[in-house]
Amino acid sequence: MSAPDEFETIARLLRPLATAPEAFGLLDDAAAIPSRPGFDLVVTKDAIVEGVHFLPNDPLDLVARKLLRVNLSDLAAKGAVPYAYLLACAWPASVTWPQREAFARGLAEDQAAFNMTLLGGDTVATPGPLVLSATMFGWVSAGAMVRRSGARAGDLVQVSGPIGDGFLGLKAALGEDIDPALADHYRLPNPRLDLDLIGATACADISDGLLADAGHIARASGVAFELDLDLMPLSDAAAAWVAAQAGRDAALLALATGGDDYQLVATAPAVLPGFTVIGRAAEGEGVRAKAAGKTLAPAALGYRHGN
Amino acid sequence: MSAPDEFETIARLLRPLATAPEAFGLLDDAAAIPSRPGFDLVVTKDAIVEGVHFLPNDPLDLVARKLLRVNLSDLAAKGAVPYAYLLACAWPASVTWPQREAFARGLAEDQAAFNMTLLGGDTVATPGPLVLSATMFGWVSAGAMVRRSGARAGDLVQVSGPIGDGFLGLKAALGEDIDPALADHYRLPNPRLDLDLIGATACADISDGLLADAGHIARASGVAFELDLDLMPLSDAAAAWVAAQAGRDAALLALATGGDDYQLVATAPAVLPGFTVIGRAAEGEGVRAKAAGKTLAPAALGYRHGN
Repeated sequence: MSAPDEFETIARLLRPLATAPEAFGLLDDAAAIPSRPGFDLVVTKDAIVEGVHFLPNDPLDLVARKLLRVNLSDLAAKGAVPYAYLLACAWPASVTWPQREAFARGLAEDQAAFNMTLLGGDTVATPGPLVLSATMFGWVSAGAMVRRSGARAGDLVQVSGPIGDGFLGLKAALGEDIDPALADHYRLPNPRLDLDLIGATACADISDGLLADAGHIARASGVAFELDLDLMPLSDAAAAWVAAQAGRDAALLALATGGDDYQLVATAPAVLPGFTVIGRAAEGEGVRAKAAGKTLAPAALGYRHGN
Repeated sequence: MSAPDEFETIARLLRPLATAPEAFGLLDDAAAIPSRPGFDLVVTKDAIVEGVHFLPNDPLDLVARKLLRVNLSDLAAKGAVPYAYLLACAWPASVTWPQREAFARGLAEDQAAFNMTLLGGDTVATPGPLVLSATMFGWVSAGAMVRRSGARAGDLVQVSGPIGDGFLGLKAALGEDIDPALADHYRLPNPRLDLDLIGATACADISDGLLADAGHIARASGVAFELDLDLMPLSDAAAAWVAAQAGRDAALLALATGGDDYQLVATAPAVLPGFTVIGRAAEGEGVRAKAAGKTLAPAALGYRHGN
């Protein structure tokens, strides 16, 4: 079979994924989303790059699903219900037809799992690594998007599940002696669309690392966060890894800064269902963290304030 | 100054471009677009790759503006009014801070020119060439998007301006002895948002080449197109280039298949204001073209039917 081409990729692999009438079967230059009075359209766009956000040998069905899921995780953090997405793929010539088929299969699988449809996008060639981006659309009741900026002093800071499995999952995927189940978590995160954020004053998903993403909320809200890393929920594998490290503080800090967890960090006056409290918002700015009762030096927190 | 970093790029260069309240100052995971009853939201997404869609030495302010304009051209073809965009940038480490500043300056300039605002997106690093994608939003009255699929047998096929300047502009940009003004056209196309498409039964912008994009309309509409390449409007530079070629038919065909014109090709029962008729829709399928009264062999048309 000849080298895959972009027209054929669209016609054979992507068109079957675009079944909603507003996608016009990908035969048009654009899609048209009808107005939905009483709702806001939540839009987010994330890009992933081969060798940066996924490994060159990762199977492309998992890469496709990861692309959708990192965007779905943003919708989850905003309290939005997934609706549809646009896709831009820059393909290296080296990606074979069966690999492209696997990519489309992964999209189809997660479209079905998350009740979404493909609305359009672009498919181009690149002399470099595979670069993918998705624009994801979801619906919230008008004005009800959970923002980063609503945290108030006194709110409880809470997370939706284990912290650090993304960090350890990357190590496992790179062949370190860590529970291989965590590598699956790294390759295929699980966006927390199952949670109810009613009552949350602010929320973000944990993609850059707990401390960085908590810092985004603190900064957007104009408050400080005081976190206790000993309160972080850990998977059995992460707890075992921490126990095997020389320094417990440094190990907890590595989990709290590693990223790719795709859990949610939220604030609310009360505990949200399914969340675990790890600290509290206070007057001031920045994120302070302690472990084993000791405050960790700010420089050790290792995240950027710039964003 | 240290190497540019993604957080700083967002904070310093992109945040000032995101002034609409629905962008939340790029401090959130997502934007929220309020419902606009009576209107449909037209969405399109195009990607461009260094070395494929623009030249490695092209100034990044022009690249930014080209990125916006290729997407705006899609909105123009749909009869939509520009509203906002999302941006995904995969930056090579080699792109310097002044180059990134130029990029943001280009965005700012065309945001103002086309009355748009930045809503969000993603900024990542890549080991490969610069890859950019924009998701562009525009508004049309509910149900009024001009589609590719509405052409009917008997409609006039018409174009909004000179054909082939994109093709020749690329040659000029690559240093061939062609009017340098055409290189500017290649680097900075002009989306035809100034046209009124009322009465158009179908429309597409000319990015893949006149024959290819006309073919998209014919296919989506289930009709054939019969075009006369001698009726194509040509710029003075293109007319001079055709006159200098050994074979006139082949020269016209090159202009009609070259792409990057960013004019519009439309169908309507009557001539649309500002358009030039180049043929007619008929029962059947495919695109037939003639020049100097002779029908050109279908194989010579050189475009793909797949899309």
